[in-house]
Amino acid sequence: MADTGKDMLLYWGSGSSPCWRVMIVLEEKGLSDCEKKLISFSDKGHKSDEILKLNPRGQVPTFKCGDLIINESFAACLYLEDTYKSQGPPLIPSEPARKANVLQRMFEVPSFTKKAMEDLLYLYMFKKPEELDQEKMTKSKAALKEELAMWEGYLVKAGGTFLDGGEFTMADAIFFPSLAFLVRCGLKLAPTFPKLAAYYDAVSKRPSVEKSWPPHFKDTEGKPHLADVL
Amino acid sequence: MADTGKDMLLYWGSGSSPCWRVMIVLEEKGLSDCEKKLISFSDKGHKSDEILKLNPRGQVPTFKCGDLIINESFAACLYLEDTYKSQGPPLIPSEPARKANVLQRMFEVPSFTKKAMEDLLYLYMFKKPEELDQEKMTKSKAALKEELAMWEGYLVKAGGTFLDGGEFTMADAIFFPSLAFLVRCGLKLAPTFPKLAAYYDAVSKRPSVEKSWPPHFKDTEGKPHLADVL
Repeated sequence: MADTGKDMLLYWGSGSSPCWRVMIVLEEKGLSDCEKKLISFSDKGHKSDEILKLNPRGQVPTFKCGDLIINESFAACLYLEDTYKSQGPPLIPSEPARKANVLQRMFEVPSFTKKAMEDLLYLYMFKKPEELDQEKMTKSKAALKEELAMWEGYLVKAGGTFLDGGEFTMADAIFFPSLAFLVRCGLKLAPTFPKLAAYYDAVSKRPSVEKSWPPHFKDTEGKPHLADVL
Repeated sequence: MADTGKDMLLYWGSGSSPCWRVMIVLEEKGLSDCEKKLISFSDKGHKSDEILKLNPRGQVPTFKCGDLIINESFAACLYLEDTYKSQGPPLIPSEPARKANVLQRMFEVPSFTKKAMEDLLYLYMFKKPEELDQEKMTKSKAALKEELAMWEGYLVKAGGTFLDGGEFTMADAIFFPSLAFLVRCGLKLAPTFPKLAAYYDAVSKRPSVEKSWPPHFKDTEGKPHLADVL
C-alpha cells in the first residue's frame, strides 16, 4: 500500500522557497497527508523552542519523516525521491544524460538565488531605502538579468515545457519557487524571456504547485522591487 | 568490467573545496583514470575560453563525463555515486536513517562554508587589512566557533570516526575539504574539539583523500587567519 505521508510533519513558512520545494515534492510523491504546521516569520516562529529542538539552526523547512529529521530542503527532496521512487513520477530520471541535466540544474539554483535574493531582494527587504547603494543595486539587477538569460537558454536547449524538456523533474521543484518569488516582486518575464514566461505559466498550473502555492501570495501583493529588471 | 574513468575530464584548481570533493569521489569510486587538468586561479584559468565553453559560469570544477557536462560539485558527486553505485563503497547508504543523516549533513555544509569562507576567510583573502571591520571579524569568528561545535556534536552523536559513524560517506567527501581549508588557515581543532581533531586526522589518511590532497597545501604554508578562533 502506498505511503501517504501520515507519519510526516513539516513546519513551513509561507513564501519560503526552501519550504515550497519540499511541499511540491510531497504532493508529487502522493504524500499529501503529511501534517503541516505553518509558522510566522514575523512572529519568529522559526526560532521557537518547538522548532529549535528539531532544528538547532532555527530554520524552516523543519521536516520529520517518522523519527527521522531532515531539515535541509535539498536533503529532504532527495530523500523523498529516493525513498518513494515508485510513487508518483520519477523526479530524477535514470537515463544518464537526463540525470546529469537534472542534477546540474538543481545545483545551479543556489547561484540563481544568490543573485536574486542575497544580492538584491534581501537588501530591499531588510535595509532602509536610504541605506541602499543605488549603483550597486543597478549592477545587481544587470547580473540578475544575465542569470535569467542563462535559464531562458536552458529552456530553449531542453526543448520542452520544463527544465529537462517534456517532463516535470526535481530541477523544476527546486527552481520554480525561487522564480515565483521574483515574479511576485514585480519581475516581468515577457517579452524579454518568452520561454521563462511560458514556463512560469505552465508550472503555476501544475496540481502539486497550485496546491502548495503560498497563501500570502494569493492574499497580498508583493512590492514591485524588480519591475525594472527586464 | 569496471569503468575506470578513462572518458572523463576534470578541470580543477588546487585547494578548491568543490574540486577536491569531486576528486575524492572519483577515487572512492575507482575512477582514477579520469584526466585532470589543473588550472591556476591567479592566472584566471577558470575564466579561459577552454573552460567557458564547457562552463559559462567560469568556475571549477568543470567536469565532463563522456559527452555529459556536470559542473556543480554536488551534482557531479551525486551523479557519480548514482551511476557507479556498485563500484567502491556506497557513499549514500540505502538504510533510511543513515541515508537521512548523510543527506542532512551533506546539505548543511553550505551553512558551514558560509560562516568559514564568505563571512571570514574571503574577507581576509580579498580585502586589505585596513578595510576589515575588526568588530565584525570577531563576531564572525564566534559564529564559526558555534558552527564547529555543532559538527563536533554530530560526530559525538554518530559515535564513530566519520559523520555517519563507522563508514566514510558522501557527507565526509563534501565536508572534509572545507574543514581542511580552515586547518590550513591556522584553525587548531584540539583541544577544544577533540572529535573534530580525530576526524581530521583519520580522514587525512584515507587513500582517496591523501591522493587528491591539494599540491599547494603540501608545498606552502597557509596564512594563520584562524589561529585565534578556538
